[in-house]
Amino acid sequence: MSTVIKNGTIVTADLTYKADIKIEGGVIVEIGPNLSGSEVLDATGCYVMPGGIDPHVHLEMPFMGTYSADDFESGTRAGLAGGTTMVVDFCLPAPDQSLLEALTMWDNKSGRANADYSFHMAVTGWNERIFDEMKVVVQEKGINTFKHFMAYKGALMVNDDEMFASFQRCAELGALPMVHAENGDVVASMTAKLLAEGNDGPEGHAYSRPPEVEGEATNRAIMLADMAGVPLYVVHTSCEQAHEAIRRARAKGMRVYGEPLIQHLTLDESEYFNKDWDHAARRVMSPPFRNKQHQDSLWAGLQSGSLSVVATDHCAFTSEQKRYGVGNFAKIPNGTGGLEDRMSMLWTHGVNTGRLTMNEFVAVTSTNVAKILNIYPKKGAILVGADADIVVWDPKRSKTISASTQQSAIDYNVFEGKEVTGLPRYTLTRGVVAIEEATVKTREGHGKFIKREPFTAVNKALSTWKELVAPRKVERTGIPATGV
Amino acid sequence: MSTVIKNGTIVTADLTYKADIKIEGGVIVEIGPNLSGSEVLDATGCYVMPGGIDPHVHLEMPFMGTYSADDFESGTRAGLAGGTTMVVDFCLPAPDQSLLEALTMWDNKSGRANADYSFHMAVTGWNERIFDEMKVVVQEKGINTFKHFMAYKGALMVNDDEMFASFQRCAELGALPMVHAENGDVVASMTAKLLAEGNDGPEGHAYSRPPEVEGEATNRAIMLADMAGVPLYVVHTSCEQAHEAIRRARAKGMRVYGEPLIQHLTLDESEYFNKDWDHAARRVMSPPFRNKQHQDSLWAGLQSGSLSVVATDHCAFTSEQKRYGVGNFAKIPNGTGGLEDRMSMLWTHGVNTGRLTMNEFVAVTSTNVAKILNIYPKKGAILVGADADIVVWDPKRSKTISASTQQSAIDYNVFEGKEVTGLPRYTLTRGVVAIEEATVKTREGHGKFIKREPFTAVNKALSTWKELVAPRKVERTGIPATGV
Amino acid sequence: MSTVIKNGTIVTADLTYKADIKIEGGVIVEIGPNLSGSEVLDATGCYVMPGGIDPHVHLEMPFMGTYSADDFESGTRAGLAGGTTMVVDFCLPAPDQSLLEALTMWDNKSGRANADYSFHMAVTGWNERIFDEMKVVVQEKGINTFKHFMAYKGALMVNDDEMFASFQRCAELGALPMVHAENGDVVASMTAKLLAEGNDGPEGHAYSRPPEVEGEATNRAIMLADMAGVPLYVVHTSCEQAHEAIRRARAKGMRVYGEPLIQHLTLDESEYFNKDWDHAARRVMSPPFRNKQHQDSLWAGLQSGSLSVVATDHCAFTSEQKRYGVGNFAKIPNGTGGLEDRMSMLWTHGVNTGRLTMNEFVAVTSTNVAKILNIYPKKGAILVGADADIVVWDPKRSKTISASTQQSAIDYNVFEGKEVTGLPRYTLTRGVVAIEEATVKTREGHGKFIKREPFTAVNKALSTWKELVAPRKVERTGIPATGV
Amino acid sequence: MSTVIKNGTIVTADLTYKADIKIEGGVIVEIGPNLSGSEVLDATGCYVMPGGIDPHVHLEMPFMGTYSADDFESGTRAGLAGGTTMVVDFCLPAPDQSLLEALTMWDNKSGRANADYSFHMAVTGWNERIFDEMKVVVQEKGINTFKHFMAYKGALMVNDDEMFASFQRCAELGALPMVHAENGDVVASMTAKLLAEGNDGPEGHAYSRPPEVEGEATNRAIMLADMAGVPLYVVHTSCEQAHEAIRRARAKGMRVYGEPLIQHLTLDESEYFNKDWDHAARRVMSPPFRNKQHQDSLWAGLQSGSLSVVATDHCAFTSEQKRYGVGNFAKIPNGTGGLEDRMSMLWTHGVNTGRLTMNEFVAVTSTNVAKILNIYPKKGAILVGADADIVVWDPKRSKTISASTQQSAIDYNVFEGKEVTGLPRYTLTRGVVAIEEATVKTREGHGKFIKREPFTAVNKALSTWKELVAPRKVERTGIPATGV
Repeated sequence: MSTVIKNGTIVTADLTYKADIKIEGGVIVEIGPNLSGSEVLDATGCYVMPGGIDPHVHLEMPFMGTYSADDFESGTRAGLAGGTTMVVDFCLPAPDQSLLEALTMWDNKSGRANADYSFHMAVTGWNERIFDEMKVVVQEKGINTFKHFMAYKGALMVNDDEMFASFQRCAELGALPMVHAENGDVVASMTAKLLAEGNDGPEGHAYSRPPEVEGEATNRAIMLADMAGVPLYVVHTSCEQAHEAIRRARAKGMRVYGEPLIQHLTLDESEYFNKDWDHAARRVMSPPFRNKQHQDSLWAGLQSGSLSVVATDHCAFTSEQKRYGVGNFAKIPNGTGGLEDRMSMLWTHGVNTGRLTMNEFVAVTSTNVAKILNIYPKKGAILVGADADIVVWDPKRSKTISASTQQSAIDYNVFEGKEVTGLPRYTLTRGVVAIEEATVKTREGHGKFIKREPFTAVNKALSTWKELVAPRKVERTGIPATGV
Repeated sequence: MSTVIKNGTIVTADLTYKADIKIEGGVIVEIGPNLSGSEVLDATGCYVMPGGIDPHVHLEMPFMGTYSADDFESGTRAGLAGGTTMVVDFCLPAPDQSLLEALTMWDNKSGRANADYSFHMAVTGWNERIFDEMKVVVQEKGINTFKHFMAYKGALMVNDDEMFASFQRCAELGALPMVHAENGDVVASMTAKLLAEGNDGPEGHAYSRPPEVEGEATNRAIMLADMAGVPLYVVHTSCEQAHEAIRRARAKGMRVYGEPLIQHLTLDESEYFNKDWDHAARRVMSPPFRNKQHQDSLWAGLQSGSLSVVATDHCAFTSEQKRYGVGNFAKIPNGTGGLEDRMSMLWTHGVNTGRLTMNEFVAVTSTNVAKILNIYPKKGAILVGADADIVVWDPKRSKTISASTQQSAIDYNVFEGKEVTGLPRYTLTRGVVAIEEATVKTREGHGKFIKREPFTAVNKALSTWKELVAPRKVERTGIPATGV
Repeated sequence: MSTVIKNGTIVTADLTYKADIKIEGGVIVEIGPNLSGSEVLDATGCYVMPGGIDPHVHLEMPFMGTYSADDFESGTRAGLAGGTTMVVDFCLPAPDQSLLEALTMWDNKSGRANADYSFHMAVTGWNERIFDEMKVVVQEKGINTFKHFMAYKGALMVNDDEMFASFQRCAELGALPMVHAENGDVVASMTAKLLAEGNDGPEGHAYSRPPEVEGEATNRAIMLADMAGVPLYVVHTSCEQAHEAIRRARAKGMRVYGEPLIQHLTLDESEYFNKDWDHAARRVMSPPFRNKQHQDSLWAGLQSGSLSVVATDHCAFTSEQKRYGVGNFAKIPNGTGGLEDRMSMLWTHGVNTGRLTMNEFVAVTSTNVAKILNIYPKKGAILVGADADIVVWDPKRSKTISASTQQSAIDYNVFEGKEVTGLPRYTLTRGVVAIEEATVKTREGHGKFIKREPFTAVNKALSTWKELVAPRKVERTGIPATGV
Repeated sequence: MSTVIKNGTIVTADLTYKADIKIEGGVIVEIGPNLSGSEVLDATGCYVMPGGIDPHVHLEMPFMGTYSADDFESGTRAGLAGGTTMVVDFCLPAPDQSLLEALTMWDNKSGRANADYSFHMAVTGWNERIFDEMKVVVQEKGINTFKHFMAYKGALMVNDDEMFASFQRCAELGALPMVHAENGDVVASMTAKLLAEGNDGPEGHAYSRPPEVEGEATNRAIMLADMAGVPLYVVHTSCEQAHEAIRRARAKGMRVYGEPLIQHLTLDESEYFNKDWDHAARRVMSPPFRNKQHQDSLWAGLQSGSLSVVATDHCAFTSEQKRYGVGNFAKIPNGTGGLEDRMSMLWTHGVNTGRLTMNEFVAVTSTNVAKILNIYPKKGAILVGADADIVVWDPKRSKTISASTQQSAIDYNVFEGKEVTGLPRYTLTRGVVAIEEATVKTREGHGKFIKREPFTAVNKALSTWKELVAPRKVERTGIPATGV
């Protein structure tokens, strides 16, 4: 029983060439000309690429007693429909909760996934148990990334002290810290001020967290990581200020990754000024959309490599859920969809415009993610031995994005009405065809948890360097008696 | 009864010209050729400049039941000896203490001053009383500057929340917030780590607060001030990282002032690696001395105007007091002298090398300070009506700096052995000759407290701009019912 | 015979205070309360400021056998009407022409001036005569600035070699080199390409000289000045790229001045896309107008001091003259008006918005110019002994700018329809009232040439520094015999 | 007849894994476990990596009637000894010479090469024949890179006009322009000045071309490339100023590659101050060595990706040839060795210190070069089908670099006395073992010319983008009649 993808052009992060691909047991077993197998997928006129990996989603996320609309079933289905074959969700313990206990809750939710997935673990408080459990999470649970929220004061937010302790722990464990970088104190204070002034609509959300607030937190997290001797991953980098902090750090040789979202690359803040409350509220996410100048910055980051991957922060709240925040923007649940449209939007606005090469497209949607998360080349590669998570991409296929035709469970789409050219002909998850153009063939429960090992080459190199330049004590004789 | 300074060249922040100066009642009453008076001071071959203003000193500062060695008498005497005719000290309330109560303590100490002085008020905690008293401090006590410590965790340090509240209060009151910018959480954590590793010598102090830690805090304070709509004054900017944050802010039009110290301009971190514990400990201050590259950055800042003033953070602890920290660098009291040598060191390394013009020298040692603190042209000017705080500067006079010949009460000098060329022939405080070359004629208690008004032109302009670009509510109809 | 300005508030680059001003013989003779004189000008409700100095105008500039429309009479009249009491024009020798011969031509034109003026000398070629004459120009003719065109290939442009030689000569003479910074080779090549493609309208002018082209030349000129050891003045800095180069240089301590124009601060490139050819062509100048982002950069430069002065490059070609370029944008004479509206436009968009303080307004329109050109405090100051070039500024007076009511001789105004608030009540040139609100009382020929001395303090300091860090030969023994 | 490399760890630019490699006909035919073949090379304890590619060498370079000491035979032998399996030399036509004629001369020299090679073509003048021949060079001769010298005035240097024309031609042909970036006018002028002052020793060479001179030219070349719509490759980026220009360009999304040399990464300017004339003169190359701060910048560039590849500019002049410049540093032939030691020096100072991961080492010494030059994955890869240019790298092997034991033909080594750890156990060129530890088995004439195709993905993407944002003509009616 084998599947062969024939007549396509393979496009990876560093190669473009004609070859067929043979798949057995969910894995690529051969790449070459004139292959044959029991099932043949015609890729004529198509690019055959590693399936997308979205490193930043929230599926079935708890919210005030309910959950975000897309669960692991609909979420991964939406992803596959768009060419994304793996997602990484965030396990979010309550500040006092055991990490392991929270992980069990997340394991329970993810069983229905149609595609492979992994988890980042959030550190939302700090105590000895968390310190201890981080080791178990890394060494036994296959999770090598820890997320820290610098915003959401009174809920998920950790302070510098806690964050610095956790970053140092990550360094020891060979793990990678991640940050949601916004200054939570300022956001909370500005939110209160705006509400007090009657500025309660969705645009208040944008006013409460301007680019400077994100830039500051990004800069701070970078310093903490540098002092801790550990690389850093900054999620949803949305603006020049944050990007500048990342570039400045990288210009000193620091190991920092930035992750713009497809929303920030293509949508702008004018959405919040829409006269339709629902329209504006549906776009409420943190950080908020920015202006054209920030978009240009993000695109340039993808071109130059100062930004590493494109994600979505997919967190699908329905219009009904969004309306919790009528009269108080701070109560609008934060999040938008995007998982389904990430690849086609990026292709349309990136590759078709010449901003990105096809290889760069693969790199930022899949390969770079896999490398940073240390699952390459099992994921993110078209190589013999790699999982057959593959998208057969038809650069001529086009559509107009609409909530009415999407897989995602929410009732709207922030990209509604946008035309895209470049869509999957087939999406395969571990060798199984889940999508064939408009036809959905996903299998609930097919997705598996992907373990990720710590101590990437970058972690190790950085530790070596930090040891080399570590403080050295000055040896002295004749030290005076203490003054007390 | 009048004094005339004859035959000198007047040098101010923007003029260089030959003229005599006539003084009556402590005030300049005439500037012009061929003046005569009852007392004549010969300024032949000299530059007649506004007396220096040191915006950053700590005299008789409390420390573990004792005080720093230079009090208002010896401190202002040392200042006058070096050409500095005014100092600004910091009133430091305990975190829970009434600002006004603390001010009374400071008033009590300052009565012996030989030269004029003012105070900055420190905000070391946050509560409603502080909020209320800030108004009294500004409107009744003549203090328009509030200092915030981002370091010294568990003691003077305030967190972002408190600092942001205080900055907003400053904006309302037309006051200027100041920051000691180092990330206190990181310093505390690194200090503990270094001590745990046995790195307990004075060099550990430098290791515990590298440039990145200062740069981060500077960047954070700038963002907070920008969000609060208030200018910002960053004390003891010691490194490129902090300077870069200031430059970046200014490049966006933000109103940020940076204050390098003469120590950071001329001394480097190698001092901490001296094999003599006392030598190293005597140089312990925060931020610590940096390397040549940072010095170059600071000099360039003075040349280009991205840094505004040169201060000393004079806080004179004796060798005996420094030895409290034998075996634990964190217990070494922070501070060095400098007040006496600021002007001659800056002239020697700045004007004599061509890095600064004489006018720039006056600007950064006196006039800019006066403008920023809103006491110009009473202070910092050679103008009719200005206080006759004047230094008659002999560019040919030279000496080798030595503790053995200094006015300051401490038993060492961080500039010991440095040769300077350019020293006061006379220093006048409100028209009274306090210094005549090596002869000290200071009068204890002569100095007066100088009130400073709020709402500088820069404060007002910034408020106008911030109001212009303030968030505007989107008016909407048909807002849906709330989701709850 | 004396004039007194009463009841106003004096505003200078560093002071704001109530006082009257007494003028005799064209010079300020007294500043103080309750002055009286034979003529009294009421300044109630007004700010009394140093008259504006426009460091960059072209009056009666030769163009294809005719001249630009504003000559020294109408040009200085327009300036006075707007509060500008001095202009600096450019003496433009042909590439092979004697500098002194050209200067005679310029002297002949300027006799009709209503206000004081000076000249910059252009270096448009390079040979021994120019080298020699530069000395005469500086030491005998009272001109301490030399302009270099990096654009206008085949006409005024000089190459790097010539420019470097001239900069070195400036260093020797204590003069200040200036540059028109655009890469002339690229502009010429792009112009030819655009025309070849049929892109012949005024918008082609903007396309042919994008910001990168200006940024590059600015960066190059800065390097040349740094190598030559001389300060640099960059005229009409219009964009972030050029401003960034200036900031970067200043951040290294280099002595570089940038001069934005009021046009670039307030108008944008959309003007060139106007469907009316005349409208677009009237705005053709070099560099062209840029977009909002560049404007923000320029304003921030004025706020932070990285840009020093605001000018106009006033060069008034009539619509008829502009039409030389129908069918070929490269033939449209370059230049717009602005001299009359510089101060009111800057006040309206700078001071009224809170971007600039009043003192900063005075600095960038007058005092900084005077300092850089070394005519301070004769010009640019309200001081006893200074020329009584004074504007009594009524911050409440407003008007709508219109060609129909202007003094300038051209038939349009690039600011047509803009409302300004803040206009002169009186403008005095050396004590003589030339403007009283809408009434023009200028006297043809009243204006005098103002000599300017070389060797500013900044020139001298820079030379001292460059000597200090000059290359030192390594003394060697045992050097081998030469290989040839 | 097959060769198998057994028991090693394969290290590529993005993978590290255990596998054997089987080679037949000079090409990798299989990668996997437990392979067998007729010849077995034991790689136990070793890393098996793509052979190094040095993109910048000058072998048998003409110099005053003689040639640089290393020709294609000794040069490629030295390269192989150090793990470098391919070099790219520069075909240097005289300014008026036919490109094709020059290419014939280079073809004649390269026949003795022991390893594969390619050529960059230099454009040292500009005329119609060059324009025409560039097409032949690209489309028939397999050369897709054109080098431009911005220095060496009067010899190889081209001016902006010529360079811009050539860059535009490169854009049309899908080729990549390269630049030697130093301002030749300034270098020439400063050289003359230094010599006139008696500063004739080798240190004068460094004085004559400081970092600012390189930074300026780099910045200029980037602007020209941007205007021409073509990527740019900057050779021998030696300093922060040039690197900053590259970073700034990349931060805007421009496609610019920087190439530091191993010499600039590890040696500093103090070499020129050596009292031994020969020592100093042997290090004379352009750009000269810089200081530690610049080195740090270059290393950070490799870490962050703002610099792309590490080369040598190997151009080996003997001490005798260097002595042509006794008494006149400008006559010292420019160039040093490095080809033999590039890999081991970079490994020692990069990988062993933790600055670079092993994968990054492969990227910058081989894979990135191959990608940029468009010969990947034939070169620079360990993939089935790739040329078996392989180095079996023993991370434990160490030596002290010495001219006395080197392959290179010159009589000294700029790295003399440096210890390196990490050296080839085997170097294979197209499957043939050329080096086995200290044993040299090279075959003269084995090397072949490698053709390189134009129109990389990056070229094409950039052209697409430039077309998208190209100037658009404004359509107007009612255009007035021309003014003439």
